[in-house]
Amino acid sequence: MKWWGWGEESVSFTHEGKPELGPFIERHLKLDVRRPGTSPLRFEELEVPAPVLPGPLRARLDEAVGAGHVSSDDHDRVVHGRGKSLTDLVRQRRGDLGRLPDVVVRPGAEDEVVAVMEAALAADAVVIPFGGGSSISGSLEPEAGESRPVICVDMVRMNRVLGIDATSQLARVQTGVFGPDLERQLNAQGWTCGHFPDSFTHSTLGGWIATRSSGMQSDRYGDVAELTRGLRVVTPSGMLVVRPVPSTSTGPSVREMVLGSEGRLGIITEATIHVRRVPAERKILGYLFPTWADGLAAIRDIAAGEASPSVTRVSDAYETAFSFATRTDPTPLDRVKSKALQAFLKRKGWDLEAMCLSFLGYEGSEGEVATQRKQTERITKRHGGLCIGSSPGTLYDQKKFDTPYIRDFLLDRGAPADVSETSAPWGELQTVYDNVMAAGYGAFDELGVPGYLMCHLSHSYHSGACLYFTFAINPAPGSDGLAQYGVVKSAIQQAFVDSGATLSHHHAVGTEHARWLEEDISAPGVAMLRSLFEGFDPGANLNPGKIVERTHEREPARPRYDGDVPSPEESSGATSPVS
Amino acid sequence: MKWWGWGEESVSFTHEGKPELGPFIERHLKLDVRRPGTSPLRFEELEVPAPVLPGPLRARLDEAVGAGHVSSDDHDRVVHGRGKSLTDLVRQRRGDLGRLPDVVVRPGAEDEVVAVMEAALAADAVVIPFGGGSSISGSLEPEAGESRPVICVDMVRMNRVLGIDATSQLARVQTGVFGPDLERQLNAQGWTCGHFPDSFTHSTLGGWIATRSSGMQSDRYGDVAELTRGLRVVTPSGMLVVRPVPSTSTGPSVREMVLGSEGRLGIITEATIHVRRVPAERKILGYLFPTWADGLAAIRDIAAGEASPSVTRVSDAYETAFSFATRTDPTPLDRVKSKALQAFLKRKGWDLEAMCLSFLGYEGSEGEVATQRKQTERITKRHGGLCIGSSPGTLYDQKKFDTPYIRDFLLDRGAPADVSETSAPWGELQTVYDNVMAAGYGAFDELGVPGYLMCHLSHSYHSGACLYFTFAINPAPGSDGLAQYGVVKSAIQQAFVDSGATLSHHHAVGTEHARWLEEDISAPGVAMLRSLFEGFDPGANLNPGKIVERTHEREPARPRYDGDVPSPEESSGATSPVS
Repeated sequence: MKWWGWGEESVSFTHEGKPELGPFIERHLKLDVRRPGTSPLRFEELEVPAPVLPGPLRARLDEAVGAGHVSSDDHDRVVHGRGKSLTDLVRQRRGDLGRLPDVVVRPGAEDEVVAVMEAALAADAVVIPFGGGSSISGSLEPEAGESRPVICVDMVRMNRVLGIDATSQLARVQTGVFGPDLERQLNAQGWTCGHFPDSFTHSTLGGWIATRSSGMQSDRYGDVAELTRGLRVVTPSGMLVVRPVPSTSTGPSVREMVLGSEGRLGIITEATIHVRRVPAERKILGYLFPTWADGLAAIRDIAAGEASPSVTRVSDAYETAFSFATRTDPTPLDRVKSKALQAFLKRKGWDLEAMCLSFLGYEGSEGEVATQRKQTERITKRHGGLCIGSSPGTLYDQKKFDTPYIRDFLLDRGAPADVSETSAPWGELQTVYDNVMAAGYGAFDELGVPGYLMCHLSHSYHSGACLYFTFAINPAPGSDGLAQYGVVKSAIQQAFVDSGATLSHHHAVGTEHARWLEEDISAPGVAMLRSLFEGFDPGANLNPGKIVERTHEREPARPRYDGDVPSPEESSGATSPVS
Repeated sequence: MKWWGWGEESVSFTHEGKPELGPFIERHLKLDVRRPGTSPLRFEELEVPAPVLPGPLRARLDEAVGAGHVSSDDHDRVVHGRGKSLTDLVRQRRGDLGRLPDVVVRPGAEDEVVAVMEAALAADAVVIPFGGGSSISGSLEPEAGESRPVICVDMVRMNRVLGIDATSQLARVQTGVFGPDLERQLNAQGWTCGHFPDSFTHSTLGGWIATRSSGMQSDRYGDVAELTRGLRVVTPSGMLVVRPVPSTSTGPSVREMVLGSEGRLGIITEATIHVRRVPAERKILGYLFPTWADGLAAIRDIAAGEASPSVTRVSDAYETAFSFATRTDPTPLDRVKSKALQAFLKRKGWDLEAMCLSFLGYEGSEGEVATQRKQTERITKRHGGLCIGSSPGTLYDQKKFDTPYIRDFLLDRGAPADVSETSAPWGELQTVYDNVMAAGYGAFDELGVPGYLMCHLSHSYHSGACLYFTFAINPAPGSDGLAQYGVVKSAIQQAFVDSGATLSHHHAVGTEHARWLEEDISAPGVAMLRSLFEGFDPGANLNPGKIVERTHEREPARPRYDGDVPSPEESSGATSPVS
């Protein structure tokens, strides 16, 4: 994993072979993609502060997971110090590392996680669970000025599908498993989980649960909140076990408290999740709509109707233009086809600047896919939609997990880019969209910087959908643009909550969205979360400061496990740096 | 509403006109339905303790909702003193009234509910919200020995559909509305909520939300937890507002904390709920399966398949026999048909004692109903199922809300009867069923009393379903059977949690299921609920003792509203009896 950017060291995005992309970026961001990039520091140039870890704690962690799985190595600590938000990346690139964790532990089994928790509480240390590290909301960084030892618990070794109950269509899975590995293990037995967020290749089941993630096929498979039935969580009060029952009436839902808890209630070690048979057929088709309003209306009508496609997605005109600009070098035949299509659309009276690209996905038996498509296209036609075949859909399907790499490509050229997503009822989506576009482009104007803001609708539900915004700016020369980025990001988030929408559909709160929480869920909602966190974790040992800020006086940690807990003398041992 | 039984004063169940029912009850419960009944006391015979309500509190309540909507009338207090669990009914009938509320208030608007909450907190009174009063889990009764004034807040006047957003398929509704009134208001504009619990005619939207209710068409419409999007709740911290967004990632779900909260977090005044167009066609068909195992397997395969019926229900052989015994006087033609069917089944080799009655419901456009039925019957046939047409389904549909009246019919004859429901994964249902039947019939044997226990499966989900058990006993002569009833009820509930199932699928925890809560959701789960309740309601003013018991030292009530709050001197005024 890159310590300064998204994903694998060996993978990056390039404009080469995409003839229209350079000119597009030049036109909208006034940015010459050929201009020399501003690289991050080299790792060797970083000033990595020494870890502060009491000897007895280190000894207990070694005992808990085996010394070979306890690391205070500089690279480990830097990689585990935060997630991949734009703010994270800019700070990493300039060597501003923040409060790094003092140690990274990699437990291999649930009882090892329990032992880590016991050790942490006995030493009054902070515990931060870590999955793929792909958080873009600031859910992973220790609080600045944290004076206690900070333990990052990387779940990477707990990556097995423990069993599949074919009758119940449920799989028991360790939460450290990454998306592709999960699908590989399930597919081998003919099953799929069907959860494909953009972060799929770099995120884990535990991370999805802790942030209430949503995947591109959520229309069919459900958000992770729906997919997740049973849970096992190591908490300060012992093992929390949520039974994998389909529905229950046992008071406020404990299951739904763990979902989105971002490590504030404990470490999720195992989940029992919905699985389905790998569908016989899977098809993603591209469509064009004359306008954004047509596209919205079509997808709304599809959601209200009898068909149930697996993917519903439509881009606004800005994102459509961007998508077309990222096309790889077209063949001569492509050029001919493209020109013929344009001519055809012009004859139909379309404004090519206003048209919107859409993807609809179908899954199931061959018959079901045919029926779904027939029912759906009756609706798309009513809204002027035109099917443009499977090639764009196939391309989207192949490339969707690469999108986050574009951020690093732009950062290399000095331009910050980021995303913000929300959800709202169908009847409010156009207003939310208009307000966000006005806020975003208003912020560009106010800052006097070139910027681009685009949107797509995805994840349809009975009563509404998600709007997903992507933006980039070209900041004033000589600046890394973080402050200007913040103005734009804030304007967009504020427009969400001012328009009755939510601060995040599936990226979570962390620290970066926390300041809009009260406007979203109201003051009593925040008070409820605070009661839960502070009552359940009175020592504030569990990823403190995330979702809601800490206000209470910390009580000393009270380990409640049985077993070998060191005396206060032992656990307050000298806080000597270790490596 | 009856103070001693279910539903309307004018409605009751009778065995007359059901020629097979008397002999059936005689055979299984050794109970002669013609024997003279044991009636409840007359209302005039009850010893109703005087209410204890401080004068200043009464004055503030009068001001809050208008004196005409504040009642300390004996009948009001008795009717609002508890719900309709079997334990409740037996105690009511014998005049054991428990700790009655001191006053019943009926606010007409949200600001009146706020004023009631302010008054209650200022006076350190207890607040218990009241919908239809149909709770069968002990969610409504004040704690025995409660020394503070107890205010029952009856939401009956807040019964309006405030608006329908046709685009978003959402309706804003006041939570005091009863089921039939809600459907009437929605139907008038072409919409339905589609939530039809057995208590439908005697329960409210607010009650459904506060208990995580589920209706007979939940397969299509979802449980109330799915149906409910937005919420407005009057809490000690002010107005909690949950935005009606389709999905959100704002930490642990506050929405899912209000669902099932049984008044422990506040008073739910308004909800924004899913609505759908009234379907063009609606059909409930009866089916017979050779055995319970065949019926279970068929419904499991339907849930895993591509059809999505609105109702899936199959009774075990015991409930099937009971259903057939409740048939009204058959016409000569019915007799002929019935004999022909029996002969046909015998020729097919069916064991008529083992066969199971099932209902499957279809809704939608005419085409969709036809498709659903075709897809579904492909599966029922594979499991030996036989469609017996629409008459049994129509009858079930008409009579389903009358079932609870049978309890009073049996109690009149000295026989306690009750229900317990659970849910579990498909793969566990047969084991759960076997364990519960063994526990129930084991309890009858142990007690040496005649008893009958029967079950149906309803509410199917991706990974499992609800099992709904009904039982009756004929206790030892001279006893009202409450202790013996308790042995059976406990045996069944214990079998649920011992088998990995949940303590309740949709009847909630209240006080009657609270002792199984820790075995179901584990000790840390209880600790999470306790943290939430005790942190958010430090004075324990909100329906204390429900779901989890109170353990902490009460802090004095701290009203957190702005406005006119009386000084401690005023609110500690003399606690003189009022009427």
